[in-house]
Amino acid sequence: MKAYAKMTTAELEGMLQELKKQYSRFQAMEMTLDMSRGKPCKEQLDLSMGLMDSLTSGADLFCEDGTDCRNYGVLGGIDEAKVLLSDMMENNPDNIIIYGNSSLNVMYDSISRSMTHGVMGNTPWCKLDKVKWLCPVPGYDRHFGITEYFGIEMINVPMTPTGPDMDMVEKLVREDEAIKGIWCVPKYSNPQGYSYSDETVRRFARLEPKAKDFRIYWDNAYGIHHLYDKNQDYLIEILAECKRAGNPDMVYKFASTSKVTFPGSGIAALATSSNNLDDIKNQMKHQTIGYDKVNQLRHVRFFKDIHGMIEHMRKHADIIRPKFETVEEIFDKNLTGLQIGEWTKPNGGYFISFETLPGCAKAVVDKCMKAGVKLTAAGATYPYGRDPKDSNIRIAPTYPPIEDLRKAAELFTLCVKLVSIEKILSEKTGEDIKNIDGETEETKA
Amino acid sequence: MKAYAKMTTAELEGMLQELKKQYSRFQAMEMTLDMSRGKPCKEQLDLSMGLMDSLTSGADLFCEDGTDCRNYGVLGGIDEAKVLLSDMMENNPDNIIIYGNSSLNVMYDSISRSMTHGVMGNTPWCKLDKVKWLCPVPGYDRHFGITEYFGIEMINVPMTPTGPDMDMVEKLVREDEAIKGIWCVPKYSNPQGYSYSDETVRRFARLEPKAKDFRIYWDNAYGIHHLYDKNQDYLIEILAECKRAGNPDMVYKFASTSKVTFPGSGIAALATSSNNLDDIKNQMKHQTIGYDKVNQLRHVRFFKDIHGMIEHMRKHADIIRPKFETVEEIFDKNLTGLQIGEWTKPNGGYFISFETLPGCAKAVVDKCMKAGVKLTAAGATYPYGRDPKDSNIRIAPTYPPIEDLRKAAELFTLCVKLVSIEKILSEKTGEDIKNIDGETEETKA
Repeated sequence: MKAYAKMTTAELEGMLQELKKQYSRFQAMEMTLDMSRGKPCKEQLDLSMGLMDSLTSGADLFCEDGTDCRNYGVLGGIDEAKVLLSDMMENNPDNIIIYGNSSLNVMYDSISRSMTHGVMGNTPWCKLDKVKWLCPVPGYDRHFGITEYFGIEMINVPMTPTGPDMDMVEKLVREDEAIKGIWCVPKYSNPQGYSYSDETVRRFARLEPKAKDFRIYWDNAYGIHHLYDKNQDYLIEILAECKRAGNPDMVYKFASTSKVTFPGSGIAALATSSNNLDDIKNQMKHQTIGYDKVNQLRHVRFFKDIHGMIEHMRKHADIIRPKFETVEEIFDKNLTGLQIGEWTKPNGGYFISFETLPGCAKAVVDKCMKAGVKLTAAGATYPYGRDPKDSNIRIAPTYPPIEDLRKAAELFTLCVKLVSIEKILSEKTGEDIKNIDGETEETKA
Repeated sequence: MKAYAKMTTAELEGMLQELKKQYSRFQAMEMTLDMSRGKPCKEQLDLSMGLMDSLTSGADLFCEDGTDCRNYGVLGGIDEAKVLLSDMMENNPDNIIIYGNSSLNVMYDSISRSMTHGVMGNTPWCKLDKVKWLCPVPGYDRHFGITEYFGIEMINVPMTPTGPDMDMVEKLVREDEAIKGIWCVPKYSNPQGYSYSDETVRRFARLEPKAKDFRIYWDNAYGIHHLYDKNQDYLIEILAECKRAGNPDMVYKFASTSKVTFPGSGIAALATSSNNLDDIKNQMKHQTIGYDKVNQLRHVRFFKDIHGMIEHMRKHADIIRPKFETVEEIFDKNLTGLQIGEWTKPNGGYFISFETLPGCAKAVVDKCMKAGVKLTAAGATYPYGRDPKDSNIRIAPTYPPIEDLRKAAELFTLCVKLVSIEKILSEKTGEDIKNIDGETEETKA
């Protein structure tokens, strides 16, 4: 197909009329579709219903070490859950704490603790004039929401297909002691689905931060969330790499079963060095007597081991892979060659990232909304909700049924076309006006 | 029986020899009993095993409003759980947030939020030179642990059988803007089992704190934890009373199902004014996407309604009432008239509070420990672990089997006798020495 930018005004205007008609037909369908969040669909949730039977009234709710999971205690999680999640996270069970129902909560608590009590004996951040944070962009809105809430100044770092711009990361953390952390979704990143290259991970492990209390917030939310059996991204394990590099304490690594079993009713975990664990447990012991051990045991009994979990994830993939492929096919079919957008084709995770022409993202999201399809707000993938180019849109294909998704993807590409044409036309007009103005100026001169 | 203080040295020394023999026999039994925490016993936990069947793989995990409890969302808890816990807490469902597995966690988070972000627009406490807190004593060690962790200066306020010394509370909060809160366990208090009188609650609701951000931390942990059908303590509902008194925002009220179903695997709740709820939710939305809705639904389906919960609590009472009575009988039998200790006889809750002669609590706890019975550390019921009189010991009768409990209570009274005699004897000797010294001094003079 011909690139829009190379078309004449007349060609574009003709096309615009036709596209508007199509858009009206979509509006007439009165869809109400929510593609705004990375939520598993009903069929995915059904995969885990066996979880409800893994502990019955006749079950033994004791751990192998004799712990009664029904009673108080065990601050860091039951051993069986540590083994399961350490296999999932590729870490040593001794380096893991099992938390409650959400890893976001663990990240929030980590920053909150650092604000009030500091990191491993360093000055509490609330006593500092300024705390800054590196934010690879586009990224995860809830990450940025936490740092914004704590008044931490966020600095954008561009993402690339191999991870954040490491030249920039290295330079900034080396020079600025106020930079205390960086948000990372290292595998099947939110929203692009990029995975950090070996070199990126190695460079992370070898950072030389000026701040002793700088920590990499390594949110490996999609560590086992592959879409394909063959094309699976591989990530170097960051704790081991940091240890090898002589920076054992530089990383907090987060994971959960949120998109493995039931979001909000799973178990979360943090893996880090024993120094960090001691520091964290010293706070945790004041915050809680312990997290939900029954639910930890429930997950262990359901999966049995990491093999059970991996097989379970293949079933997830079978459900959501066609959804990703449907979106990608429709994007390919409708947009290839038009040069009005680019999108990612990830091997895993929960999102596709779409780049419109500059200044078009908000308008596209609005147009979709007005025809009944809710997308993640444009800008949400950037700190403070401000996408400087207004070009990034996060597509979450997992939740809607595939037929709805097909319509939504068709609508989305239609809206991209409409908004892009309008933009190109207004620029043409703008240039005409500028040219006229220019001539006028010249005439005057 | 004759009061020890009125016995002669010879009588006491004779008795001491006999008691030491008895103590040796206890040591020979090699008991290992843990009475240190207020934990439900196995039979109590068994009462809730039906909870494991209330949601099976064939169950419908949807709320009445169509919410799929297996997926993300619903920040403040599902409506059904709000109804159940509001009935339990005697509040309006609209004034309630349902949290995760622990109310201690909610209290910690409330203080942490106040440190970093302040209360309803007031200055964050971490920006103040000094924050102080009122602590009715003896009280709950984990409460004091939180305020100590945040560097909040704790001020002891004596407890009485009708609640904290309200003259002191009123005066302190009126005069000192640095006082931002008070810990309260208003019903079947930890450790005495006292319930606040109507007058105490009314005076609480009418406090005139100098600090606008002063909050009563009303931990109604034992609201439905009666031991008897007839002798049940009644507590005026504090939110309603605060509202009537024109102080609607002055209280955070906490509760949980920890000692109703499974500690650590239940659900917690906070009830407060809508102004406070708005303030809190503005923080919560950054901390989490939502708490464990499946477990909320599990509890609702298990109890059905408040009647189911109350009937369930009667079964708990049937199990633990004989334990309280066993301890009380043995204390009565062995200690009445000796004037070496006083103890409470609560109508509910999880503890009996014991007051030794001044300076004896640590020694009694140590002596019990050396014969295999672990009690809550002496001093734990006071801020900073410092009981100024070294006289309070918390007895937790619920966990051990009744036969073990009998032995433990016998041992405990024996240790009280031993330590008391030793103290009285040393005082007699001390007085003798002082008398001799006195004479010497006089002779010198």
